[in-house]
Amino acid sequence: MYLAQIHITLKPGVLDPQGTAVYKALQALDFTGVEDVRIGKYMEVRLSAADRAVAEMQVAEMCRRLLANPVIENYAFQVVEG
Amino acid sequence: MYLAQIHITLKPGVLDPQGTAVYKALQALDFTGVEDVRIGKYMEVRLSAADRAVAEMQVAEMCRRLLANPVIENYAFQVVEG
Repeated sequence: MYLAQIHITLKPGVLDPQGTAVYKALQALDFTGVEDVRIGKYMEVRLSAADRAVAEMQVAEMCRRLLANPVIENYAFQVVEG
Repeated sequence: MYLAQIHITLKPGVLDPQGTAVYKALQALDFTGVEDVRIGKYMEVRLSAADRAVAEMQVAEMCRRLLANPVIENYAFQVVEG
């Protein structure tokens, strides 16, 4: 069994209204040192596969086909045993 | 300048309808090896602080006061320079 830890983030330059809202809320709470907030997704996918290379190939395909929107998002992942 | 990389995940046992939807979509796409999907948030907060210990203290407070819902979510973060 493998665990894929997947990060999906907005590409640089893509507007992040959720991040802006959190930034303003942090300012309102007096966290004045905060300069920028970007918000993405974190997914944990548990899967069975013949070996780690196969699992990594499958996770890359999941990201391309479903999990990330390649127009506006980047993805990165690591696959660990467990 | 410091960069806080924050992971916010649902506590074990908390229902994750978004994860269930993704799980079903992956099954429909023939990723039959997938056994479980959990979806959380990933935030990057860029902040200035006197040193890393101060930055870490501030990020922990942000998580407690705004970023995570401690009833149903766990948070974890690391603070790096940059």
